Amino acid sequence: MTTHTMRRPAIQLTITVFALLTAASATSQTPSSFSRSDLTAAQALLQRAQSDSTAYQLAESLTTEVGPRFSGTLGDRAAVAWAQEQMRRLGFENVHTQEVDVPQWVRGEAEFAVLEPWPQPMPSLALGGTVGTPNAGVEAEAVMVKDLAALQALPAGAVKGRIVFFNNPIERRRDWAEYSRAVSVRGGGPTAASALGAVGVVIRSLSTSSQRFPHTGGSRQPQDVPRIPALAISNPDADALQRQFASGRTVRLRIKSTARELPKQRSANVIGEIPGTDLAHEIVILGAHLDSWDVTVGAIDNAAGVGIVLTAAHLIQAQKLKPRRTLRVVLFANEENGSAGSRAYAAAQEQNLANHVLGIEADYGAGPVWQFSTRVNPADVGVIDQMYRVLRPLKMDRGTNEAPGNADLSPLVAKGMPILGPELDGTYYLDVHHTANDTMAQIDPAAIRQSAATFAVGVWLGAQYPGKWQRLPPKPPRP
Amino acid sequence: MTTHTMRRPAIQLTITVFALLTAASATSQTPSSFSRSDLTAAQALLQRAQSDSTAYQLAESLTTEVGPRFSGTLGDRAAVAWAQEQMRRLGFENVHTQEVDVPQWVRGEAEFAVLEPWPQPMPSLALGGTVGTPNAGVEAEAVMVKDLAALQALPAGAVKGRIVFFNNPIERRRDWAEYSRAVSVRGGGPTAASALGAVGVVIRSLSTSSQRFPHTGGSRQPQDVPRIPALAISNPDADALQRQFASGRTVRLRIKSTARELPKQRSANVIGEIPGTDLAHEIVILGAHLDSWDVTVGAIDNAAGVGIVLTAAHLIQAQKLKPRRTLRVVLFANEENGSAGSRAYAAAQEQNLANHVLGIEADYGAGPVWQFSTRVNPADVGVIDQMYRVLRPLKMDRGTNEAPGNADLSPLVAKGMPILGPELDGTYYLDVHHTANDTMAQIDPAAIRQSAATFAVGVWLGAQYPGKWQRLPPKPPRP
Repeated sequence: MTTHTMRRPAIQLTITVFALLTAASATSQTPSSFSRSDLTAAQALLQRAQSDSTAYQLAESLTTEVGPRFSGTLGDRAAVAWAQEQMRRLGFENVHTQEVDVPQWVRGEAEFAVLEPWPQPMPSLALGGTVGTPNAGVEAEAVMVKDLAALQALPAGAVKGRIVFFNNPIERRRDWAEYSRAVSVRGGGPTAASALGAVGVVIRSLSTSSQRFPHTGGSRQPQDVPRIPALAISNPDADALQRQFASGRTVRLRIKSTARELPKQRSANVIGEIPGTDLAHEIVILGAHLDSWDVTVGAIDNAAGVGIVLTAAHLIQAQKLKPRRTLRVVLFANEENGSAGSRAYAAAQEQNLANHVLGIEADYGAGPVWQFSTRVNPADVGVIDQMYRVLRPLKMDRGTNEAPGNADLSPLVAKGMPILGPELDGTYYLDVHHTANDTMAQIDPAAIRQSAATFAVGVWLGAQYPGKWQRLPPKPPRP
Repeated sequence: MTTHTMRRPAIQLTITVFALLTAASATSQTPSSFSRSDLTAAQALLQRAQSDSTAYQLAESLTTEVGPRFSGTLGDRAAVAWAQEQMRRLGFENVHTQEVDVPQWVRGEAEFAVLEPWPQPMPSLALGGTVGTPNAGVEAEAVMVKDLAALQALPAGAVKGRIVFFNNPIERRRDWAEYSRAVSVRGGGPTAASALGAVGVVIRSLSTSSQRFPHTGGSRQPQDVPRIPALAISNPDADALQRQFASGRTVRLRIKSTARELPKQRSANVIGEIPGTDLAHEIVILGAHLDSWDVTVGAIDNAAGVGIVLTAAHLIQAQKLKPRRTLRVVLFANEENGSAGSRAYAAAQEQNLANHVLGIEADYGAGPVWQFSTRVNPADVGVIDQMYRVLRPLKMDRGTNEAPGNADLSPLVAKGMPILGPELDGTYYLDVHHTANDTMAQIDPAAIRQSAATFAVGVWLGAQYPGKWQRLPPKPPRP
């Protein structure tokens, strides 16, 4: 999951206001209900999904047989081949790829050390897309601030020629609210610090873990200020660095990074379908990104999501169900490091957007789903209630109609496509995402099974909906 | 805590047999009791210790202001300076160092990758003292075995020219029994594999954690077979490698290590005392090792132990208590990588061993103490019961008279010195020991406070014992 997925307060407000504005027209629609046979099939699907371990097995296969698959690398190519093979094995039709140009950012090595008052090295990771340092590294006095607002509040010249340490802890939560608040530091910290004359940035990782893993992640690349190197350190090291500042003595840091950008590479979105019947031209799209960060096998981010969406579509077919609408699974390229796959898909489908009638995306770990949120036209909230009644045995709350959604479908959502947005439990997600520690040990087989079951039922009923999925008005572009 | 600390089944048996043999002579001693005033003072000491955070603060200071302190490095020198400074600050007398020659093993970089069937790199750490590979690394087919017995059971020639993967998981326990069982692989695996013609070794870390940290640790250096490189990988990676073997296909591995041995360096044991009164020539020795592994700030291994023993002695003085016997704190050099400090101390005190009347050592994390074990002459078990009655409010079991003890005092124990052996809760110890993840985040302030309180009371009463601490017969040398 990338930076911009998470910046949503303004968007949520927009949705809320919009919901009020459209309520009048919405209620003029005749509410539709699922047929009894579709609901019975949904219950049988739920039963089957609850004893099916395909999603876990797929995540295990992807992490074991492919492993790291950072976009533009050989691992990424292996993942694209793996995905096509799995789709064919699982009985998908129209399996194909859509080629995408992706950035080729090379991490190289990062070194971070406190030089004064008490020298010690600390493990670090460069933020994605950042520049390296000169070979000798960068040594400078450091200034500690909490966040961007605190940086801006410093006296003029306070960070000129210095390294800025952003020390902004986040709290453990089931939802994404804390991450949403703190991600501005990772995304915008280097640019803001550079604009004030800083020569480097170190951030406390966006992490809820006390384990000593730095978290990488994307960082916006400035247009009009010099690019400066930026590293992340783990929470326990940020605590230790904070203690060095607390001594009241001058803190000097050394950072070194050999990160660099090379010419673009080719990657691909991988697409496969379960064809529809009478409404085959209408597409219910299931999205998940196939790529991972370079330092990890990407189990919860996002082999889990790949497993969930493949399994949801597969189970429907395995139950010999014939969806009215076409189920299209898109495994997106390059979500972590630029979202080129997402943009390329939306661009290629520009003339076909109206046929993307409903979406669902898996990019927040393995679950379980704790609330069944959506972002659908208010006219269709009634059938969501019916869906939820089928799902309730899976032990989740009803959720809201302001689902946050994830990154790869966001261009389609921006054009008014409604989504099912089951919210996966993120209590421990931010302990491991974007770290080397994102391994299969982090996936609970029962949790991912529940998530795949939720997606399967949601998608099946979404494909069968006897009414027409009403679109939403276009969203304003993100700030 | 090193390898040989943990190999104890034979020793335990010896102690048990010995206890039976000496019971007769032991009972001829007149049992002694602590004076009422000493017991009252012990209770007040316990009270004070329960609200004292010196041990935690010392561990925080050592890990923050010194950090990694692998013996022979600059960090080690800084630790020796830090220890003397702290002892003086805390009011110890006769603060001095004992110089020690220590090995200078340099880890360099380790690389580990699966080449076939499914290529992927995995984080690894060289085992301490092992040799490096040629610059090009070593590539070979791999053979997976559980442990040394399984290795020996293979057909002749099965590992010749191959890399041996020792895949021996351990279970989470409060005591050290599992580690004791499994450490033979780390200690003896490379030698055993080399003797059969293997070209390299990879082990599943001796770890109870599902986090992706490889654990380093000492490995015995073979005398009569070629030294071969040996790396450890984390539990989740060992699981992933096991899945590659489970495919039934040939597994090929690549290992590279630039580990090497340089000429010896100087380090030092740091010694300080709270002088005794009428029995000042008798020494109650409190031991903990000051060094850490190179990859870690060594919070639970062993800044915690350093904090516990310094605090125990300090609190006695801070309570204005005048111990009859001298309390001597020895912070040992080079426990992790050779135990040169322990051997040097025992050698220097050879003529004074009989005056080391009682010992206590802290080298198993921060606690809490879950049982108050000892290894004293059966004649003195009665006063241990009295000690325990004072300690009981700290919520621990009575323990056994077969305390395992730790490494640095073992040469003195081998010569018959009795010890108090409070057993610290090791439930999570093996999650983090010998990893980069051994940070202050792993120390529970309440746990270390309880441990320091236990040590303070034990040492105070040990110093006041109105009788004579009976020695034990020498232990046979370790196999």
